[in-house]
Amino acid sequence: MPVGTLGTVKAVPQNVLEELGAEIILGNTYHLYLRPGHEAIRRMGGLHRFISWPRALLTDSGGFQVFSLSQLRKVTDEGVRFRSHLDGSSHSFTPEHSVDVQIALGADICMAFDECTEYPASRSRTEESLRLTMAWARRSLDHFRAHCHEVPWFNEFTEDREPGAPGASLLGTWDRPRRQSLFGIVQGGTYRDLRRESAERLVEMDQTGSGFDGYAIGGLSVGEPRELTLEMIAEVLPLLPADKPRYVMGVGYPDEIELYARMGVEMMDCVLPTRAARHGLLFTSEGRLNIKGKKYAEDQGPPDPACQCPVCRRYSRAYLRHLMHSGEALSGTLNSIHNLAYYLGIMHRVRTQLQADGATESARAAEAVETRLTG
Amino acid sequence: MPVGTLGTVKAVPQNVLEELGAEIILGNTYHLYLRPGHEAIRRMGGLHRFISWPRALLTDSGGFQVFSLSQLRKVTDEGVRFRSHLDGSSHSFTPEHSVDVQIALGADICMAFDECTEYPASRSRTEESLRLTMAWARRSLDHFRAHCHEVPWFNEFTEDREPGAPGASLLGTWDRPRRQSLFGIVQGGTYRDLRRESAERLVEMDQTGSGFDGYAIGGLSVGEPRELTLEMIAEVLPLLPADKPRYVMGVGYPDEIELYARMGVEMMDCVLPTRAARHGLLFTSEGRLNIKGKKYAEDQGPPDPACQCPVCRRYSRAYLRHLMHSGEALSGTLNSIHNLAYYLGIMHRVRTQLQADGATESARAAEAVETRLTG
Repeated sequence: MPVGTLGTVKAVPQNVLEELGAEIILGNTYHLYLRPGHEAIRRMGGLHRFISWPRALLTDSGGFQVFSLSQLRKVTDEGVRFRSHLDGSSHSFTPEHSVDVQIALGADICMAFDECTEYPASRSRTEESLRLTMAWARRSLDHFRAHCHEVPWFNEFTEDREPGAPGASLLGTWDRPRRQSLFGIVQGGTYRDLRRESAERLVEMDQTGSGFDGYAIGGLSVGEPRELTLEMIAEVLPLLPADKPRYVMGVGYPDEIELYARMGVEMMDCVLPTRAARHGLLFTSEGRLNIKGKKYAEDQGPPDPACQCPVCRRYSRAYLRHLMHSGEALSGTLNSIHNLAYYLGIMHRVRTQLQADGATESARAAEAVETRLTG
Repeated sequence: MPVGTLGTVKAVPQNVLEELGAEIILGNTYHLYLRPGHEAIRRMGGLHRFISWPRALLTDSGGFQVFSLSQLRKVTDEGVRFRSHLDGSSHSFTPEHSVDVQIALGADICMAFDECTEYPASRSRTEESLRLTMAWARRSLDHFRAHCHEVPWFNEFTEDREPGAPGASLLGTWDRPRRQSLFGIVQGGTYRDLRRESAERLVEMDQTGSGFDGYAIGGLSVGEPRELTLEMIAEVLPLLPADKPRYVMGVGYPDEIELYARMGVEMMDCVLPTRAARHGLLFTSEGRLNIKGKKYAEDQGPPDPACQCPVCRRYSRAYLRHLMHSGEALSGTLNSIHNLAYYLGIMHRVRTQLQADGATESARAAEAVETRLTG
């Protein structure tokens, strides 16, 4: 999932994302809450309509940015008080408030409010953090159940409303479920038993019949060694129901996302393709390519000879280098388009291969789970 | 003509320019000479290929930027010595060197090297400046005639080379004349008689049978009142051959370009649509719109209700305001696309109207010339 922090995947127009085959993008609740504000977005019919994105959207809980960007945080059982990184103004997020904001934004998938445990963190610190996250997950779920009908587009799409009919969306081809989904987030730092506990407790919340619609593994890729990331994912994945989406948050490099997808992870998001692009780092079939390199000054080949994206079909390395060196805005746009195409291409390839192997990702993942549990 | 200073119309990908109907864009010789360098561009086959633009290109002479951007200029009859605004390195442009650089860049249209007289300028200062510009025009023309076969794509396109055949351009549909054109530039500040003298002397250079391929009116829109701009254009236009393109450089606002086009001006360029866009100023059928305005915070209407550009068809004022406020790169891209569509739309409308009136622009312009000369 390309990341569209403030309602835009940086430097890439929405129609290009569609052409690249992006089926879902992320918005960041913390950023959109501060600017332009969730109430403004609610009044305009929700984030899909505000940013003119007819496909799926996911919003995070705001927790990660509160912990990474804001100042003067104060965490209590109730929630988090923090100051805006924009103007220092004072705000608070509780599980209930985070869910309210996400309902106002109206993304297809919301995330439970959690504390993203930093790395490294002691066992006692991690236990305490997990205690909060689990309590907040329960409160997020209860509040979501009670309020999910308040989404701005609730009941907007009924069978008898044709696209273009009064009350139907401007985005006539918008086809999505009638209600939002809520995902729970597994935390537990780098402690395998805490990760297991976290996953099991989230899944237990499903026993009333209306638990989470999917499960995320959070708090990874925050500085720990890659082997530890992998170990935690492998530990948790078998415990999550294979018939619901499993989402690893904030990963990763091309080889990582391919590996995790093959392990059964269905969703991932990362700013890496777009952020790296703005710094001139291109991901290609031949490895990483730093487009600033002097050796590309007169290289008329495409950024990636094996890539069929609109950038590789039209522009040379020399031109992309020139744009970067000249500080031209088009640099970020073209580099980002290529990197997103590369990432989406990996996922497309893995999906096709898994299907060709005669197993859906879920079935294959279930197999892997079985193997691991009995192995 | 949208301006593509460094080989990119800022923030707008080439395919979008094509979709908007841009038939020709500008490159700035001064900028491209400094970065990435005209020799590098020559080695890569010329500017069209370097920036992947199969339609027409025009390069200015470098004079205007030397006078407006560089430091420590020293002007002699020979040419101009200057220091780069990038790194302070020392360079010189003479008419011959400017033409050489433009041949290396290989645009379809080159411009004679001139001095753009500042405003205000005394009569004696303007006379002296004009003397230089006229001498430089002669030298530009002579040097161009002697060297125009050195263009990187000379003889590259012959009738028997199909697009895609060995030796043919990567840009298979590239269809343009076998040689570059050179335009002369009328100067003379705001003195009508000097403007007339300048135009007449340039046209006289045609008497040998191979003069300029078109004529530009330069040194306008440099701070003088609009009435004076108009007066100078009206003075000069009737003196320029109606069967060759007439180009007013560096104008202007939407109402200006419409007026000048109706007077018979066939070509204009200006950074205004793209530069204003990056500052949040949109040109619309309802007048100028500063998208930063608080009143647009929840305005879900399109930037211009009468516009059919890709931006107006998809995005709201509220979203464009949000992008601008958030400092998002997409802001410059979307605003620029709209403004370029608006400018190109004006030219399209004027052209259609002139044709519907039963007169081509040239014929109509010739009429206007007649009227003015006998009036």
